[in-house]
Amino acid sequence: MMRGHRRGFELDRKLNSESEPVLWLGLCELRVMNDSRWPWLILVPQRPDVEELFELTPLDLTMLTFEINLVAQALKDTTGCSKINVATLGNVVRQLHVHVVARSENDANWPGPVWGHGLRTPYRREDLHQFVETVRRAL
Amino acid sequence: MMRGHRRGFELDRKLNSESEPVLWLGLCELRVMNDSRWPWLILVPQRPDVEELFELTPLDLTMLTFEINLVAQALKDTTGCSKINVATLGNVVRQLHVHVVARSENDANWPGPVWGHGLRTPYRREDLHQFVETVRRAL
Repeated sequence: MMRGHRRGFELDRKLNSESEPVLWLGLCELRVMNDSRWPWLILVPQRPDVEELFELTPLDLTMLTFEINLVAQALKDTTGCSKINVATLGNVVRQLHVHVVARSENDANWPGPVWGHGLRTPYRREDLHQFVETVRRAL
Repeated sequence: MMRGHRRGFELDRKLNSESEPVLWLGLCELRVMNDSRWPWLILVPQRPDVEELFELTPLDLTMLTFEINLVAQALKDTTGCSKINVATLGNVVRQLHVHVVARSENDANWPGPVWGHGLRTPYRREDLHQFVETVRRAL
């Protein structure tokens, strides 16, 4: 009741179990996918019951665009990757979320997509924390 | 020289060969992927030498967001699909382009991604034209 515009937002359980929080932006919760095969961030707009981009208000959509841009640039700068992949699929987890993934020529499944490829490979705890800190400092 | 802001933009050859034009929006050339397995549109910002979202000017990025939204809503309305997938990957074709794909529970590779799955299945010419006309009318 006191959280204003975030009222009713609850992070999807699968997203919660497979990723860790990095920080909170104006609209989105920024998370890191706990999969050491690729540097992989996820933006989740803190709005309840939204599945498609076009269900966001125009202001929220503009905010999301700005936050994607910010995170994509930071991920490129910190990883020196070949290409940033940005996607919102939602075929499995319906809660609107945007993947921002750093891809390089020698990574797993290059140049194919990261989704549905093999098994998630969790980070060692210290490596996850180091990646989170690197991303935080870049933002 | 007389085309102003479009000076220097040339559509990537692979995009050109695998997709067909639908129409031209303010920023993007809208194309349909010639793959009958999924209703699949592609937006290509008509700007030369842009590979990443964050290389667009803020105004172009806002335009792109608006055009993605417009096209995604139209594709959802015309197909009645379960979920719209929006992505910019660019691991193979480096020219910035955005996929907008209509996905349904019984389609090829559901709920996995469309990229890198099997072989492209071109439309019969009349079916392609009908799909293009349906999209044009919805925009």
